[in-house]
Amino acid sequence: MMKEPKDILKLFERYTPEIDDEIKGLLKSHTDLDMYKMISYFFGFLDKSFKEMKNYGGKRFRPGICLFLAECYGVKEKALELATAIEIFHNFTLIHDDIEDRDELRRGRPTLWKLWGINHGINTGDAQLHLVNEELYKYAEKNPQDNIKILLYINQKFLEVVEGQYLDFTLSELPINDKEVNMNNMIDMIGRKSAVLVGCSASTAGMVAGLDQSEIDNLWNYGYNLGLTYQFCDDLTSIWGNKEESGKDELADIREKKKTLPILYLYQNADKKTQARLVSLYSKRNDLTTSEIYEVKKMLDDMEIKNLVINRARKSLDLVYSAIEKLSISNKNKKTLREINDALFPVLGGE
Amino acid sequence: MMKEPKDILKLFERYTPEIDDEIKGLLKSHTDLDMYKMISYFFGFLDKSFKEMKNYGGKRFRPGICLFLAECYGVKEKALELATAIEIFHNFTLIHDDIEDRDELRRGRPTLWKLWGINHGINTGDAQLHLVNEELYKYAEKNPQDNIKILLYINQKFLEVVEGQYLDFTLSELPINDKEVNMNNMIDMIGRKSAVLVGCSASTAGMVAGLDQSEIDNLWNYGYNLGLTYQFCDDLTSIWGNKEESGKDELADIREKKKTLPILYLYQNADKKTQARLVSLYSKRNDLTTSEIYEVKKMLDDMEIKNLVINRARKSLDLVYSAIEKLSISNKNKKTLREINDALFPVLGGE
Repeated sequence: MMKEPKDILKLFERYTPEIDDEIKGLLKSHTDLDMYKMISYFFGFLDKSFKEMKNYGGKRFRPGICLFLAECYGVKEKALELATAIEIFHNFTLIHDDIEDRDELRRGRPTLWKLWGINHGINTGDAQLHLVNEELYKYAEKNPQDNIKILLYINQKFLEVVEGQYLDFTLSELPINDKEVNMNNMIDMIGRKSAVLVGCSASTAGMVAGLDQSEIDNLWNYGYNLGLTYQFCDDLTSIWGNKEESGKDELADIREKKKTLPILYLYQNADKKTQARLVSLYSKRNDLTTSEIYEVKKMLDDMEIKNLVINRARKSLDLVYSAIEKLSISNKNKKTLREINDALFPVLGGE
Repeated sequence: MMKEPKDILKLFERYTPEIDDEIKGLLKSHTDLDMYKMISYFFGFLDKSFKEMKNYGGKRFRPGICLFLAECYGVKEKALELATAIEIFHNFTLIHDDIEDRDELRRGRPTLWKLWGINHGINTGDAQLHLVNEELYKYAEKNPQDNIKILLYINQKFLEVVEGQYLDFTLSELPINDKEVNMNNMIDMIGRKSAVLVGCSASTAGMVAGLDQSEIDNLWNYGYNLGLTYQFCDDLTSIWGNKEESGKDELADIREKKKTLPILYLYQNADKKTQARLVSLYSKRNDLTTSEIYEVKKMLDDMEIKNLVINRARKSLDLVYSAIEKLSISNKNKKTLREINDALFPVLGGE
């Protein structure tokens, strides 16, 4: 899922303490089982020996979007529990995702399952979903007038993220020349897995403020397309960026034969011979070798696939900009949202 | 977790169609991703090729308890969504539990992870937690006056089940002579893992009916102690019952070196030499051999551990009976609850 570049931190770091305090308070309200300390580790509050960590902290990108927008509408305080619930849900998906992908590192630290085993990873993730519910109910108790409608909405969005994970497994298991591995299904999968939660972060701010459906729809379009653009740029940097930019080993996506947007573009635009070679490489049981990785990289460069991905990302980014324009927030706040785009997507070269 | 003998079916089977229809309706309200069909498989609605199954169906023990008690208080219809939410949650725990224990069979059929892999098992379980929420919200929408209080209560009980799973992992990982492997911690673990959800099924009926806290507490004591008694009897039959009674391979708990109540009693009552032998056997990396299994079985028989477990189970069953007596339901309904005990615990020989 998404990783955030450092620039965005500056815009959102003022919300991080509020979100973190809310999460810490929630964790403290439970018994002192180590299960809750493992969750604290994952959030960056404790190290792996359960000693307090200073100066760590995730970027809290999704609740940051939610609270910034809620602040635009004058309901920042009211939105805190829902923004926190979204952040906890996001971290739950990462814990289970790390198991499913067998990823051993997350944000530069060993993943939860790597430290304490797959069983604790599964179960600790499960516990977090109930902590998500506690935050949702805390909101609902304070706001009885609109409580169930908004809970149903958020729960549905969370379920779509789980569906996205299902679709990701399904696409991974199919050969690259299967007719189900097509652009529609890939965008659908990326949308549910990576964009829905950003869309939900934005639209939730509007729901908390009790805005018209058309404004909520604009917020959704803003967040959803921001999430899509983010994922496309992530695919770009993981092939054409350096290790520092992507946060991954160089060309790891190719080595692991991930069916990303660039690979799908390559397959669709290649001649029969290249297609056959791709089918052969991408149906290998093991990771690709270094020479195979560079063979695929050369195919991508020869076909100028980078430009196709940039164009697709710009298409989503255009929708982000037009959604921003339509929002009924101040020009100053619109400017901030545009600056977030600049910080997130330097590779797309601004508006 | 718990398995129910066939006798109890007769008392509860009249609620099964309502519960099953509610679950089927919920599943149908979602997109037709195979993920939802995997869930239908686990519930016994579909076979592994996703063809409809007739005449299957789980026992729906927990929602049966909830709906029977709700009917005693005249609120059966009102309790349907919450009873269903509890059943879906129970099935979610089983799906993840099967992965964590690497169990390949459940109710005589391949487990979900065994058919579709661990990743689909984790993710499909996650999806079910959101379906649980949908049922809870459906109740809350219909009953705005008491909605959040009851949702918070049920969510807290669900979290305690997850804590029970955590405690089970922890006890499993410790050597049998560790001071943390003691009666208090074992009963605490069994309570959260196996008894809390039965307690919650009973007390939820009282909350739906808007009863006094003292009646709700009695319902909780009834269900919680019923769950405890059930688990103790499960431990008994898995050692002293035949394969048909236990539903497991004969002496499987001993072969897998599970730290159950009988083993803990044995360790506590054994002489130093036997204790040392037990520590040695129960710290083996692999399963016990057949001769080792019968060595442990002989220790259990020599020390008459069966009687200790029966006495402990009777102590919990006494609490079940006294809770039943205190309930403000008709004598006819009290008689039915006592008959449930007889059906569930023939080994304890009735009241």
